Amino acid sequence: MAPILLNSMGNEHSDYIQQEEYVKNPHLDSMEEDILYHFNLGTKTHDLPQMFGDVKVCNPNRMRSFAQFIHEELELPGNIADIRDICEGTDRYSMYKVGPVLSISHGMGVPSISIMLHELIKLLYHARCRDVIIFRIGTSGGVGLPAGTVVITDKAVDSFFRPQFEQVVLGKVIIRSTELDEDVAQELLQYSSELPDTPTVIGNTMCTHDFYEGQGRLDGALCSFSTEEKLEYLRKASEAGVRNIEMESTVFAAMCRVCNLKAAVVCVTLLNRFEGDQISTPHDVLLEYQQRPQCLVAHFIKKRLGLIS
Amino acid sequence: MAPILLNSMGNEHSDYIQQEEYVKNPHLDSMEEDILYHFNLGTKTHDLPQMFGDVKVCNPNRMRSFAQFIHEELELPGNIADIRDICEGTDRYSMYKVGPVLSISHGMGVPSISIMLHELIKLLYHARCRDVIIFRIGTSGGVGLPAGTVVITDKAVDSFFRPQFEQVVLGKVIIRSTELDEDVAQELLQYSSELPDTPTVIGNTMCTHDFYEGQGRLDGALCSFSTEEKLEYLRKASEAGVRNIEMESTVFAAMCRVCNLKAAVVCVTLLNRFEGDQISTPHDVLLEYQQRPQCLVAHFIKKRLGLIS
Repeated sequence: MAPILLNSMGNEHSDYIQQEEYVKNPHLDSMEEDILYHFNLGTKTHDLPQMFGDVKVCNPNRMRSFAQFIHEELELPGNIADIRDICEGTDRYSMYKVGPVLSISHGMGVPSISIMLHELIKLLYHARCRDVIIFRIGTSGGVGLPAGTVVITDKAVDSFFRPQFEQVVLGKVIIRSTELDEDVAQELLQYSSELPDTPTVIGNTMCTHDFYEGQGRLDGALCSFSTEEKLEYLRKASEAGVRNIEMESTVFAAMCRVCNLKAAVVCVTLLNRFEGDQISTPHDVLLEYQQRPQCLVAHFIKKRLGLIS
Repeated sequence: MAPILLNSMGNEHSDYIQQEEYVKNPHLDSMEEDILYHFNLGTKTHDLPQMFGDVKVCNPNRMRSFAQFIHEELELPGNIADIRDICEGTDRYSMYKVGPVLSISHGMGVPSISIMLHELIKLLYHARCRDVIIFRIGTSGGVGLPAGTVVITDKAVDSFFRPQFEQVVLGKVIIRSTELDEDVAQELLQYSSELPDTPTVIGNTMCTHDFYEGQGRLDGALCSFSTEEKLEYLRKASEAGVRNIEMESTVFAAMCRVCNLKAAVVCVTLLNRFEGDQISTPHDVLLEYQQRPQCLVAHFIKKRLGLIS
């Protein structure tokens, strides 16, 4: 690989360093065209470097509102009503770009976010992006925390509390580590103290492949266990350092790690699972909770871009 | 359970038979309210029997267009432009009801469709629906079949070609069978011969948790295998009776089976995976392919409702 000029985000100096490529696929270079099918984008139909070359932050998130919020926070020119969905030709994902921030929905569950990540990482490669930080912002069930707590993920763990992700490749199981960037996590925790109404902790996040039976909920269409068995599982999770439960973090951490992307997972808890299963908090309170990880990540971005000290 | 009056779909006689409940959860009856969170519906906020009591067919499908198509095919009164998304308060799923047909999106991958199925099965329970048939209609990669072939699933198999689904419940792995309704599959195959341009086969469908590495694609952000290794995996799949690959069928089959729902999976192939990985067929051709399973299922519904002989 040739040395290239690299502008580190939040760094005032530039330097020649070795290029770190995000993709890990020797086949890509021999392809005449690369169609990012689920994004409705392609290397022949779209000028990806021109469209995305300046991206420094990716934020897989289900809401258009974050893009508009970031646009206001970064005081960017133009009307927020003009921000359009770059993936509007497909109903699979939504994608918004405001300044150096790319905000993309990822659907629910490991398979859905993994398709998005494959195509996003290829997009960053084709667009020749450098020094990207990627955040997953979302919601989760809390384990022993009051609703509304922001959890920055230390390790993403599976249903057996192991910090690993099992990827099936051609019928063989491959184990990948799910460690996230420690510095970004600590920096986020530090910034959280500067924000009002943002109770924040660092802890392990359990990623399951099912919202009901897999997370020990008693209110699914299927349930074969007792309240006591549910609580025992949650107690074991808590003892393993699990502070919240969601459905995407392990593959997110694993893929970003393999692909040299600095990554963080920031999710708010919508309920304390020791107290119940149903999300019955009023809609406006839930909306306020959901803004907390957004505000924290926006604060991080503004710090890194030097917009606030 | 008390015997109840049951009107079998497509049956001219009614009879007292034992009630078959779809849900398998003893906790549900003790809940004062049941919030179907991801549908933005609830037992206290919505009259579910009034809204959904007449449903006989469920069709998890990503497109609003199917609801409009069915509305026209069943010659229902009212304007198709008035068909509204019942889940419009959330961006997670879309749901359309036309006559006795409920059409719901399910996102991509096992976790996403499983959340939808839990809440759909509870919805059918709360709405006191009977004799429901559920179809998954979608797209897939073909294994040795020309693009545009409709595959009716015999058995849904996992990445190791086993007709089973592994569900993690409270940290323990439970195995569930993925057999589908043989009669519905045979009936669909028979009707396919009555339709133009609908090449159709019955075969096994492999369900993976990943679109790229898990399906042996060479064009993901990550790829650690050769073209020959990919082709060898596809050959083994073919020898195991696999005719197409998608990402939802095992949990769909497993949950419907446990919950006494007659179920079928009908997916069109968008490409022959022995010939490539990228979906590069022109958009209008893909759209025509995607209509084939829809037309076949619509034909089935019209036959069952006695609209055609």
